[in-house]
Amino acid sequence: MVVEIVCVGTELLLGNIVNTNAAFLAEQCAALGLSCYYQSVVGDNEERLSKTLNYALERSDVVILCGGLGPTPDDLTKETAAKVCGLALVEDAHTRAMIEAYFEKSQWKVIPDNNWKQAMVPEGAIVIENHNGTAPGIIIEKNGKSVILLPGPPNELIPMFKKDIAGYLNRLQPEIICSKMVKLAGIGESQVADEIDDLIQKQTNPTIATYAKTGEVHLRVTAKVKNEEEAKKLIKPVVKELRERFGNYIYSVKEEETLEEAVVKLLGKYDLSLTTAESCTGGMLAGRLVNVPGVSEVFKQGFITYSDKAKRKLLDVNKATLKKYGAVSEETVKEMAKGGVFATDSDVCVAITGIAGPDGGSEEKPVGTVYIGCYIKDRIMVEKYLFKGNRAKIREYSVVRALDLLRRSILEHYEDNK
Amino acid sequence: MVVEIVCVGTELLLGNIVNTNAAFLAEQCAALGLSCYYQSVVGDNEERLSKTLNYALERSDVVILCGGLGPTPDDLTKETAAKVCGLALVEDAHTRAMIEAYFEKSQWKVIPDNNWKQAMVPEGAIVIENHNGTAPGIIIEKNGKSVILLPGPPNELIPMFKKDIAGYLNRLQPEIICSKMVKLAGIGESQVADEIDDLIQKQTNPTIATYAKTGEVHLRVTAKVKNEEEAKKLIKPVVKELRERFGNYIYSVKEEETLEEAVVKLLGKYDLSLTTAESCTGGMLAGRLVNVPGVSEVFKQGFITYSDKAKRKLLDVNKATLKKYGAVSEETVKEMAKGGVFATDSDVCVAITGIAGPDGGSEEKPVGTVYIGCYIKDRIMVEKYLFKGNRAKIREYSVVRALDLLRRSILEHYEDNK
Repeated sequence: MVVEIVCVGTELLLGNIVNTNAAFLAEQCAALGLSCYYQSVVGDNEERLSKTLNYALERSDVVILCGGLGPTPDDLTKETAAKVCGLALVEDAHTRAMIEAYFEKSQWKVIPDNNWKQAMVPEGAIVIENHNGTAPGIIIEKNGKSVILLPGPPNELIPMFKKDIAGYLNRLQPEIICSKMVKLAGIGESQVADEIDDLIQKQTNPTIATYAKTGEVHLRVTAKVKNEEEAKKLIKPVVKELRERFGNYIYSVKEEETLEEAVVKLLGKYDLSLTTAESCTGGMLAGRLVNVPGVSEVFKQGFITYSDKAKRKLLDVNKATLKKYGAVSEETVKEMAKGGVFATDSDVCVAITGIAGPDGGSEEKPVGTVYIGCYIKDRIMVEKYLFKGNRAKIREYSVVRALDLLRRSILEHYEDNK
Repeated sequence: MVVEIVCVGTELLLGNIVNTNAAFLAEQCAALGLSCYYQSVVGDNEERLSKTLNYALERSDVVILCGGLGPTPDDLTKETAAKVCGLALVEDAHTRAMIEAYFEKSQWKVIPDNNWKQAMVPEGAIVIENHNGTAPGIIIEKNGKSVILLPGPPNELIPMFKKDIAGYLNRLQPEIICSKMVKLAGIGESQVADEIDDLIQKQTNPTIATYAKTGEVHLRVTAKVKNEEEAKKLIKPVVKELRERFGNYIYSVKEEETLEEAVVKLLGKYDLSLTTAESCTGGMLAGRLVNVPGVSEVFKQGFITYSDKAKRKLLDVNKATLKKYGAVSEETVKEMAKGGVFATDSDVCVAITGIAGPDGGSEEKPVGTVYIGCYIKDRIMVEKYLFKGNRAKIREYSVVRALDLLRRSILEHYEDNK
């Protein structure tokens, strides 16, 4: 089945916002086993939107339109789609009640007249409740094809897609698609690919696809099945096999779990308090940990020690160490990590020092040289990296590697030595 | 003149990457006064790419294709564009020499055979040097229309567009477009719009357009002119008028300058050393400052004090203050900022404490309540905010407001009191 994504909005054509909806929808559709050959962006303009929708309907089975469902007159995605499909707009009583309820809860007590427009739906369409806004999703089925209209704001579109649209698309297919994500860190994409080359060759159902994210590799195991029970039966042994091959490189098998969430969970599991000591990343590691709600249970404080003096004063790094080995060295990162633990009476400290550039590199220590250290219960692990890319990339990779070193340090200490 | 953007790449269709190139190109084209009615994404597939390019050439004057210029056989944008335009591919000696030079400098000493493919260009095309990779940009002019091929990696595409393509597009137009950016912080978009409503109504050349970024407002003053001299004459008085109306809300009139760069420059100007003391933002403020190369001149160290105990121990916040007013209060943020200065002997400290959610809110202090304080030379400024949005948004806004409070504190101390 072929799906096509059409995003509607002048702000996209002007480049005021980046089209994250297209990426989200494309990734979700791929995970459902749907083929997608075209994406397009068009403004809030009836003529051009009609043309685009007609092109899309000629060459695809399902067209997902997002954006342009708002209450103002220039929002005309719904009106245009209804016209293209030859349907009249009628008021949907349930949606009207939902809009009333939405405003009841909100700070605006008067409902703007415009908003009633959002209760109008193409005759016979399937209406999808919007739990985060006033524009409902709409599915029009016509001549064996489907046109799906979704609201543009990602905080409305994403939950609606996951709750209702993914299931709808799956039911359109002769076989349903189920998948499981296996997330790895601390290992490169090509090494992962090499190690599962035989599985990829052999496996046709489920299939295994690899995705490289910054410093991470995600494997999606996808099965085409008749029901969820069959999916479990097919997917489980493959995930088991991947666990055997990759062991601790796997940080999660949950679709939504991030590396920082996995790390915070692990710290909580062993009741460990964490400190961070950052030089070149300058707070980005801590900032990423604090993405996790509830991180305060394990993370109380951190240091940014950008200068040598700060490393000495806040982390008690030896002056002689800095002089002899330099701020970017194995010796310094060890003392930073140890110093972080002692300064705060924490259980663990992860430290980063490196040269993010563009200046400061040398023959011996080029831009991209980064040392990461993790001190845990009197043991210390240090890793040296040479990252490529600009200042931002080097810092981003450093953060991912530091999170992963922290994760592996805990695992080695608590789980491998059991 | 109408331009259309076509991004080529299976990784976009699969949602593996977000299409930032489209947003960049769209914003740049809008700044050049070009109209853009369609964007599309298509995979590395000759048939579908041909169709898309033909559609685009029917309805637009200029088609910008990006991606698919790599050395592997599945990169076929150039081959397809040449075929659609009826041109043969011939080797470009200069590009061949550039590729040799590129590999000479790189760590790979042997040039893969594939790469010679990148020296082939459509006959008669304009070849644009790529200073950051091996795929040159290509401009095909045919029947009064232009097809522009750009490499997909943003670190190649962006500099090439700015250096050569923007000028080329400008020269296609009867009048050239020149613009100047005026960047504001600490003021909302609607207030900005109100204050320049008369200018927007009155001004036709140059025009003024407003763009809302997270916590910032950017104004672009755009003139249609015959030459750059005329542009200066038209734009200068408008920028002067904006300066008079917005004063210190303006942090930069440089296109590329970020808020953190403006702040770091200001710290350097007055030879001020800075410390950060962050609670809910957990290092994000410091992380953003460290985006700026050379920040080490003014920023030596920072604290992440997520727990009450850390606020007491590292910043010497009074136990009684925390007990009486709570960690999220004006009193606490004042002591954090003061404590940061005294703990590190810095000149300035900016401190943030707030409730980023999703939990921890109360009737009195709901989620989104954030206090920001800036201590500078025995004076302290505190601001209280109630931000809307999720955890990530609240933290992002807090960082922007903190950067701006820091900026305004320095200006008030050093420039307004002169």
